[in-house]
Amino acid sequence: MGMATLNPQRTIAELKELRALTGDADGAQRVAWTDTWATARAWYRAKLAELPVQVETDEAGNIWATLRGATERAVLIGGHLDSVPNGGWLDGCLNVLAGLEVLRRVAAEGVPPVTLRLVDWADEEGARFGRSLLGSSAFSGTLDPESVAALTDRDGTPLPEALAAHGVALHGMLAAQRQQAGAAAYLELHIEQGPVLESMGLPLGVVIGTFGVERHRITFSGQAAHAGSTPMDKRRDAFGAAARLGLEIREIAKRHGGVCTVGSCITRPGIVTAVVGECIVTLDQRHMDAGELAAMLHEAQEASARFAAEEGCTVAWEPIWKIHPIPFHPELIAMGEAAIREVAGTAHRLPSGPLHDAAEVARAGIPTVMLFVQSLRGISHNKIEDTLEEHIALSVEALDRLTSSAMAWVQGGG
Amino acid sequence: MGMATLNPQRTIAELKELRALTGDADGAQRVAWTDTWATARAWYRAKLAELPVQVETDEAGNIWATLRGATERAVLIGGHLDSVPNGGWLDGCLNVLAGLEVLRRVAAEGVPPVTLRLVDWADEEGARFGRSLLGSSAFSGTLDPESVAALTDRDGTPLPEALAAHGVALHGMLAAQRQQAGAAAYLELHIEQGPVLESMGLPLGVVIGTFGVERHRITFSGQAAHAGSTPMDKRRDAFGAAARLGLEIREIAKRHGGVCTVGSCITRPGIVTAVVGECIVTLDQRHMDAGELAAMLHEAQEASARFAAEEGCTVAWEPIWKIHPIPFHPELIAMGEAAIREVAGTAHRLPSGPLHDAAEVARAGIPTVMLFVQSLRGISHNKIEDTLEEHIALSVEALDRLTSSAMAWVQGGG
Repeated sequence: MGMATLNPQRTIAELKELRALTGDADGAQRVAWTDTWATARAWYRAKLAELPVQVETDEAGNIWATLRGATERAVLIGGHLDSVPNGGWLDGCLNVLAGLEVLRRVAAEGVPPVTLRLVDWADEEGARFGRSLLGSSAFSGTLDPESVAALTDRDGTPLPEALAAHGVALHGMLAAQRQQAGAAAYLELHIEQGPVLESMGLPLGVVIGTFGVERHRITFSGQAAHAGSTPMDKRRDAFGAAARLGLEIREIAKRHGGVCTVGSCITRPGIVTAVVGECIVTLDQRHMDAGELAAMLHEAQEASARFAAEEGCTVAWEPIWKIHPIPFHPELIAMGEAAIREVAGTAHRLPSGPLHDAAEVARAGIPTVMLFVQSLRGISHNKIEDTLEEHIALSVEALDRLTSSAMAWVQGGG
Repeated sequence: MGMATLNPQRTIAELKELRALTGDADGAQRVAWTDTWATARAWYRAKLAELPVQVETDEAGNIWATLRGATERAVLIGGHLDSVPNGGWLDGCLNVLAGLEVLRRVAAEGVPPVTLRLVDWADEEGARFGRSLLGSSAFSGTLDPESVAALTDRDGTPLPEALAAHGVALHGMLAAQRQQAGAAAYLELHIEQGPVLESMGLPLGVVIGTFGVERHRITFSGQAAHAGSTPMDKRRDAFGAAARLGLEIREIAKRHGGVCTVGSCITRPGIVTAVVGECIVTLDQRHMDAGELAAMLHEAQEASARFAAEEGCTVAWEPIWKIHPIPFHPELIAMGEAAIREVAGTAHRLPSGPLHDAAEVARAGIPTVMLFVQSLRGISHNKIEDTLEEHIALSVEALDRLTSSAMAWVQGGG
C-alpha cells in the first residue's frame, strides 16, 4: 500500500488526454451511443483496470466501478463521459475523472470503512435523441421506456436500435434500479455552466438543489394584416402581446428571485409587410421553491391573458415539461461547504439551473449533493467552455475532502 | 351608336365569370407569367374585341386598349389581372373590369374629345419572383432589368425565362416607356385592403398618395446562455432588446401619425432552454410625409441603440427597401372626392399603405389618383377577401364619373 496521495494535476492531464482522443477542432464529440463515446469509455475502462475495483455495466449502460469497503453501505460519486456535439472539454468528464482520482487515493489507503463507487452515467445529455438523464433515470426508476421508444435521431435511427448497438435493451433498462442497493450518499462535481461563481470571484460553490422547472409553449393569435393599410389602432398584433409578455416575465423573475426565459419566438406569417397574426413563444421558468415557482407561473398566465385582451388577441398555453424542485441533502450540503472552505477559503451556496444526474439520484431518495467549479464566461455546450486549471485542481481536492466526510458520515450511520 | 349606359352589374357578373375561370377552392390563381394568368388575359382580350378599341401588348407585357379620341392626349385607367396565389376575387381585376365598363360607356357615346386608354399591368403582385410592380415600373422607367435578372421562382426557374415564355424580353422591357406619350391623367380603382373605410362605415375613399416606406432588418446580438444557470441580472438578452423595440415602434407610429410594424422575429439559438443570443426583426415604417418618415426612422434607430446598450447587446441595421412618399395630383384628388360624393354622399381622403401601379405612374410625372372601395374586414391576398356588391357597383359608378371629369380636365388642358 503506497502513500495516499491525491494528484489533481493527473486529472488535468487525463482531461487533456481524453480531449485529444475524442475531440476535434469543433470540440468534444462524445455523443452517447456513438463510436466516439465508446472510444472514450474504453479509454476510461483501461484506467479503471489499474485499480482494485470491480467494474460492471448495468442494464442501462451505466458503468460502475466499485471499491468494496468494510460494509456494503456505499458512497457514490458520479459523472458522465458523454458530451453534446461540439461540446466542451469539462462538462461531465471532469466529474468522472475527478472521481477516478479520488478513487485512486482511497484505494491506495487499503480497504475503506464503507464501499466507494464511481458511476459513469449513460447519456446524460440526450444530445442524439432529445431525452437527457437517460441512464440515471433508469437507475432512479423515473424512466418510462415506452415514452422514449419512438424517438429517432436526425438520421431516422430509432433510439432502441442505437441502444441495442451498445448492448442496452430499452425495455430492460429499469433493472438498473438494483444499483440503488446500499447507496447512502451521492456526490457529483460539475462545472457551473453559469456566470455566478465567476462574477463573485469564487472558484467553488456547493449546490443546494436543482430548480423546479415549468416549461410552456404560448400562442398569441391576433389578425395578420397589411403593414401599410392597417392603422395602428385597428391592429390585433400578436407580436405586440408576445413582446409585452417577454418583458413582463423578467419582472416576475426578479420579484420572486427565480429565472424566466423566452427562448424562442416564431412569427406568422412572419413577413416584413404584415402585422403578425400568430406569435408562438416558449417560456421556461425555474425556482428552488415549489410555491414561488407556482406563483411565477400563475403571474405569467395572468399577464398573458391581460396582454392578449388588451391587444385584441387570444392566448393559449401548452405544457412542454415540468419538474418539481429537488433539494439536496442538508447535511451533505454542510459537508460540501466545509470541504470548499478548507481548500478555497470561501464557499457559496447556489441552486443549479440545469438538471444533472444528481437530480435523478436525489429523486430516488438517496442523500445527494453537488459541487460546482467556476466556468469561465459561464459558457458550456461549446468548444470554448473552460475553467482555470488552478480551479480544476481545487475542485478535485474539494471532491476528495467531501468524499472523506461523506464516507465518515455513512460509516457513522448518516 | 346606342344609349350610353353604364352597367355596374355587368362588372360584378364579369368578376364572377373570371373567378370561375381562373380560381379554385383556395382562391384566385392568376399568378403572373403562368398559364392561368394567360387564360385570364385571353378571356379579357375577347371582351375587348367587342369594342372599337385598338389592343396592343407593350414590351413589358402590359396590355393597352386604346379608344382614340379627338386628341392624342389621353386619360389612362389601369389595373392588373394578376393575383397572388390563393388570392381574392377583387384585388387588381376589379380595377380592370370596372375600367372595361367605363370604356364601354364612353365608346358607346362615339369618338371622345380625348383619348381613353385602359391598361392591364403585367405582374403587379410579384408573387412568383418577389418583384412587384414589374410592368408598371418598366412603363415609368424605374425598373433596372439587371437588378431582377438573377431572380428565380421557388422551382428555380429564372425570371427572364418565365418572361420569355410570355413573349417578354427582360432587357427590352424599358421600351414600354413610350406608352407615356400623350398620357395626361391616370386613374385607378382598387379595393382598400385595409380596415379604414369599413370602420368609418363608408363605401368609398379617395387616395391622396402612397406612403413613403422605410424597411429594415435589425439584428440584436447578445449572448446565448443557459436558461437555468444564468441569473436575470447576468443576461445579455437579445429578445428582451427586440421586444422593447417592438413596443417602442408603436409609440413612434402614434406620435407621428404613421404606421410601424415588426412583421418577423427570429430567435437564435431559438430553443426553450437558452437565453436568446441573437434576435433578428424586420421593421416596416410608412408615412405620407418624407420628413415625418425620416423622423420615425431616426427615433427607431435611436431607441434600438438605447435598448441594445441597456440589455448588454449590440444592434445592427440593414436596409431592405425604401421609397419616398408619392403624393397624388391635387386636382384629380378633388375630382375623385367629388365623384364619390355624387354616388355615395360622403367621401374620405386616405393614404394608401400598399404600393400600387398608380405609384409608378405618378413617379413618371403623370397626374394620378386612386379610388378605394371598402374591403370587408380589411382582408386581401386571401380567398376570403370580399366587398359588398352594392359597394362594387358604387365604385364602378364613381370611376365612371371620375373618368368623365378627368377627360374634361384633360380636354381643357389640365
